[in-house]
Amino acid sequence: MSEPQITLSLDEVRELATVIFSAHGLSERQTTAVVETVTNAERDGCKSHGLFRVPGYIKSIASGKVSKGAVPVLTDLAPAVLKVDGGNGLAPLAIERGRQPLIDRTRQQGIAALAITNSYHFAALWPEVEPLAEEGLVAFAFVSSLSFVAPAGGTKPLYGTNPMAFAWPRDGHPPVVFDQASSASARGEIQIHQRDGKQLPDGWGIDNQGRPSNDPTAVLGGAQLPFGGYKGAALAMMVELLAGALVGDVFSFEATANDNGDGGPSKGGELILAIDPAKCVEGGGAAAQLAHAEDLFAEVLGQDGTRLPSDRRYAARKLTPIEGIQIPTSLHTELQRLAS
Amino acid sequence: MSEPQITLSLDEVRELATVIFSAHGLSERQTTAVVETVTNAERDGCKSHGLFRVPGYIKSIASGKVSKGAVPVLTDLAPAVLKVDGGNGLAPLAIERGRQPLIDRTRQQGIAALAITNSYHFAALWPEVEPLAEEGLVAFAFVSSLSFVAPAGGTKPLYGTNPMAFAWPRDGHPPVVFDQASSASARGEIQIHQRDGKQLPDGWGIDNQGRPSNDPTAVLGGAQLPFGGYKGAALAMMVELLAGALVGDVFSFEATANDNGDGGPSKGGELILAIDPAKCVEGGGAAAQLAHAEDLFAEVLGQDGTRLPSDRRYAARKLTPIEGIQIPTSLHTELQRLAS
Repeated sequence: MSEPQITLSLDEVRELATVIFSAHGLSERQTTAVVETVTNAERDGCKSHGLFRVPGYIKSIASGKVSKGAVPVLTDLAPAVLKVDGGNGLAPLAIERGRQPLIDRTRQQGIAALAITNSYHFAALWPEVEPLAEEGLVAFAFVSSLSFVAPAGGTKPLYGTNPMAFAWPRDGHPPVVFDQASSASARGEIQIHQRDGKQLPDGWGIDNQGRPSNDPTAVLGGAQLPFGGYKGAALAMMVELLAGALVGDVFSFEATANDNGDGGPSKGGELILAIDPAKCVEGGGAAAQLAHAEDLFAEVLGQDGTRLPSDRRYAARKLTPIEGIQIPTSLHTELQRLAS
Repeated sequence: MSEPQITLSLDEVRELATVIFSAHGLSERQTTAVVETVTNAERDGCKSHGLFRVPGYIKSIASGKVSKGAVPVLTDLAPAVLKVDGGNGLAPLAIERGRQPLIDRTRQQGIAALAITNSYHFAALWPEVEPLAEEGLVAFAFVSSLSFVAPAGGTKPLYGTNPMAFAWPRDGHPPVVFDQASSASARGEIQIHQRDGKQLPDGWGIDNQGRPSNDPTAVLGGAQLPFGGYKGAALAMMVELLAGALVGDVFSFEATANDNGDGGPSKGGELILAIDPAKCVEGGGAAAQLAHAEDLFAEVLGQDGTRLPSDRRYAARKLTPIEGIQIPTSLHTELQRLAS
């Protein structure tokens, strides 16, 4: 963080992003949804998914691959399965289109699935599950990306970094949420090591001969490794199957082959699941289940050195109105150029 | 494997186990279900969940905590949520009771959940998901156990080894299945290192002061670690929430407090989910999705050194009719004693 920084308010982040997307012809509805995603990432201190992503989004619009005026279409596939076809647009509007129908269906059926296809996902995955848990539901999300990660025992990129997110609702607290790649590290972390001339920790990747490497350039030209060895690789495969074959969309290796290499997001599918805890026990209310979960969280936090997943993000959220949002001056300059 | 071994046929395994459970007063239906689980584990070379488990099962029956004649009760909680109360019996019959109703409900609704409560789980988790995938469904299962694993950043046992299983159906092949603990190793592997006087690999556990340790005795008295650091710990927490609070049953730390320490299984809950791929796309058939998944599997297997999860198990299954099943003579002696 030796780079000069500039401080913005959350409103300034929203306004700047809105001007940029609008200037590049993205429809108002698409713009509102993607700007919300970018702004919420900055609000929560998730720098890698905030304004930092905007130039990539714009590349994908400028190259013509993303449909600027895409109108996502909701389809009813089964009593407990909904689908949103993103219409070749950015993912945030497609996800938003399916959210309330998924909530309604989950409350009716007890569990429901939302398949999202044909859209460009370039964000974190917690924005999918946190709003569902805010509505009292348990939620999962799975999304694939581009081929970066070797399968277990293999040496060449095949899987995406393939995150899985999970959220559990709480009374009087924001939900417990995790959102974790099935790779040992985010790709962006390797790029930051490269930029800063630092060696990688063991276990992050292999070179293009399949040899373990600590050199970020060699790993970026080789393959990332899953977290936790073959177990992380199994999760990466699961995400490919759920966000790809199951919903009728592509695998990461196909997204890679299809992509025009403009540096923006690639097109693919996603799966979101929600469960209504009130429908998983007799009696019709979830209060006892949520109270019971607090016993587990108290046990976790009763040990020194622990925290709950997403606590750091909620802490950042509280500080944002006080401290504002810092972004590198160089990024701000680039964004101002994109805004004009 | 320097211990003397004895070879049994699969029928002999089934017969021996049946005689033992019957001799201890387990009802015929309970016996048939648990013997099927034990026999299938031996069939697939999963030694740690085969006959090796029988003395533990018998301890839990002999101590009086398991209900010998439990009749699991199925309840309809919501259009897409079913529950089986195991009635204080062993888990295999409760799982079997819910299986066909879950399959039927999943085909109707597109996705469905089966909550299992009040039962004693002492087996692997692939037996839950593989039969669902044999019926063409995608399946997940989650079960907790006893407190053995420290939370992320913590030093004391809290979570169970908490496996998660996943299965994907294939045409003309047995399903792709994984069944993996959220701990770095199975508890039994640590016990085997202890028995053989071997040091543990790094990352498996900590001693009772929270210090990383390679000493199996110290780790068994301290805590196991999740696989892949905080990411595995997040999965362990997710499993606690799904198999505990969500279904209205206990967490691992509560199961530990409740258990009588007889060395058999502890009582708790479980969650099984199933998705019908045919209901996740327009058109009504899953053939294209399953064919598409084969493209991914071909990419995995196209790399040297790879295999699909569960391939080793299916290879063992093929060898069993030819080679029979080897168990230690000492175990066989113990089982014969239990049978008389």
